[in-house]
Amino acid sequence: MTKRIAVLPGDGIGKEVAKGTVQILEAVFECFHHDYSFEEALIGGAAIDAEGTPLPEKTLKLCLESDAVLLGAVGGPKWDQNPPELRPEKGLLGLRKALGLFANLRPVTTYPSLLHASPLKKEVVDGVDMLIVRELTGGIYFGNPSGRRGEQNEVAVDTLEYSKSEIERIVDKAFQFARNRRKKLTSVDKANVLESSRMWREIVNKTVEKYPDVQVEHMLVDSAAMQLIARPNHFDVIVTENMFGDILSDEASMITGSLGMLPSASLREDNVGLYEPVHGSAPDIAGQDKANPLGMILSAAMMLRYSFQLEKEASILEEAVAKVLKAGYYTDDLRVQGGKRVGTKEMIEKVLDAI
Amino acid sequence: MTKRIAVLPGDGIGKEVAKGTVQILEAVFECFHHDYSFEEALIGGAAIDAEGTPLPEKTLKLCLESDAVLLGAVGGPKWDQNPPELRPEKGLLGLRKALGLFANLRPVTTYPSLLHASPLKKEVVDGVDMLIVRELTGGIYFGNPSGRRGEQNEVAVDTLEYSKSEIERIVDKAFQFARNRRKKLTSVDKANVLESSRMWREIVNKTVEKYPDVQVEHMLVDSAAMQLIARPNHFDVIVTENMFGDILSDEASMITGSLGMLPSASLREDNVGLYEPVHGSAPDIAGQDKANPLGMILSAAMMLRYSFQLEKEASILEEAVAKVLKAGYYTDDLRVQGGKRVGTKEMIEKVLDAI
Ligand SMILES: CC(C)[C@H](C(=O)O)[C@@H](O)C(=O)O
Ligand SMILES: CC(C)[C@H](C(=O)O)[C@@H](O)C(=O)O
Repeated sequence: MTKRIAVLPGDGIGKEVAKGTVQILEAVFECFHHDYSFEEALIGGAAIDAEGTPLPEKTLKLCLESDAVLLGAVGGPKWDQNPPELRPEKGLLGLRKALGLFANLRPVTTYPSLLHASPLKKEVVDGVDMLIVRELTGGIYFGNPSGRRGEQNEVAVDTLEYSKSEIERIVDKAFQFARNRRKKLTSVDKANVLESSRMWREIVNKTVEKYPDVQVEHMLVDSAAMQLIARPNHFDVIVTENMFGDILSDEASMITGSLGMLPSASLREDNVGLYEPVHGSAPDIAGQDKANPLGMILSAAMMLRYSFQLEKEASILEEAVAKVLKAGYYTDDLRVQGGKRVGTKEMIEKVLDAI
Repeated sequence: MTKRIAVLPGDGIGKEVAKGTVQILEAVFECFHHDYSFEEALIGGAAIDAEGTPLPEKTLKLCLESDAVLLGAVGGPKWDQNPPELRPEKGLLGLRKALGLFANLRPVTTYPSLLHASPLKKEVVDGVDMLIVRELTGGIYFGNPSGRRGEQNEVAVDTLEYSKSEIERIVDKAFQFARNRRKKLTSVDKANVLESSRMWREIVNKTVEKYPDVQVEHMLVDSAAMQLIARPNHFDVIVTENMFGDILSDEASMITGSLGMLPSASLREDNVGLYEPVHGSAPDIAGQDKANPLGMILSAAMMLRYSFQLEKEASILEEAVAKVLKAGYYTDDLRVQGGKRVGTKEMIEKVLDAI
């Protein structure tokens, strides 16, 4: 049966990088005689402009019927003043929740030829290879109440809420990843202040009984924010709740100095997943053939691996990217010295050649 | 009238650095014929051991009657397994709340001779001079409900809550600091997700009308976590809510590579304040004459400036510290090459000599 891939280019450079990535995937599928279909839909600002909502019914329906979703990026200054319900991000948050994508994976790896672009010293970042596992459908992002009350001295409220089963499934997922890597799991919380963190810690301590081969440590979020910079090589797998994960994974993405290279996956239990590069819609360079498509291509590789179990095909994509970098091709953002600067389209050609 | 200073050494190296700092302050006061008294009390683990509570009545009473509080550090593995109410940190949180210390100030500055110790590249950190203003008595640290409900699938809840007036006073404070510095204020929030952040942003946009000479920008907390590392020199004053401030100020303290040097102040409107070094109680080196006392000494300088308006005396302390560093003296944590390594006591002697 044909596997269905929903493609949501979104806004800004999302469109350019999504287009090129589909081209590459088509080449791979053809080469291996796999049967996949691509169907495009609107999300974010583009959907607000065309349909008056960041997540149109049609888009949601397509995604619910698909085996995987490829997303470019959402957002831009055009919609920044919109009311909360009409912001591009709402489309993304709604989609995560509707699809039940509770496990966000953010691998942070380094490429020797790109280390110079890091704000950190070479000896600090060299060899970094970590995976951040962020809970994505719970916590303060979705808790109730979230609103205001009172008149004279108005009070704004947000609610951080986690059920036991929500924590159990993400923690279990993280243990599985740790088991298949260097068997080291850092659980990040704020157990000295938050009740939800104390429950989180209890569940981690319970789950480790199932994974005696994995070494667990607990780290407070403030301390983790320090250690990520001071000794990023300390980390293998990090697991944490939604908001802490948002902050720490972005902090970690800066370590490598190559934000444009970083992929992400958001999964649920049955392998359906949403795949998007870590970078944003970069309105300042949109439509100028300057965007780095490699983060999106590496996200597509994660799709092949996690949603379709096409490990060989995933590796081919990843190796093609490494080869192109090694050959000295780079987009603007990577600030490589001496190499050959290329635009989005040429970079995609190079990856196609390397496959 | 004699000004009263409460001294709470706390746990671990807190005791060593507090003792030396009092010595130095006594020397300064004597020299200028100022009339100050020092009274010591227990807090944190030391208080749990002696009185069964991290914040004994006696300690609270002393602090409430004092003009300023000097605190070493609290915490240690000995009390890590205690129930929440019997943790050393509870003493500190309780004291902040009871004294109403809503404005936490964390200056991050660099010393040329210490730049090598930073995990960041010299050209990235050189010249960094920022002030993080963190709201300290509200938000998710103190909101209600905070607890658990349900049996089968238990739910843990924490509440992020801010009233308009709580936000107004901290934002106003931050604008005042910005006005007296480089007139640039970065307000950090998560307005694309949190209602409390949207209210925060509205209040910042309203307050700037009172400070037209200050340039304001809004930054999302995930983006701020990146920019702090990528371009720390971008920042002058940062203002943010309690939890974001906890994370970002610790991240920022790593930039300089000299955590042991960093001071902090926690203030309320009438200049009463609590002053403590950013570093923790460091149980691994406690009692070994290895601790760096400079963070505590610089905190004492902040006390002279903010609680007692002794600007000249504050500068004398700060210059003495700079002089000692320039002369090449360093404690273990600073990893200076070529200089002269000294212990806590000798470092204090050197600062005394330099005054
Ligand atoms: C756009 C925003 C709501 C989103 C988040 O905070 O989850 C983004 O920062 C991310 O990490 O994907
Ligand atoms: C000890 C802890 C409760 C405290 C906090 O989170 O406020 C500490 O991390 C700090 O920043 O002073």
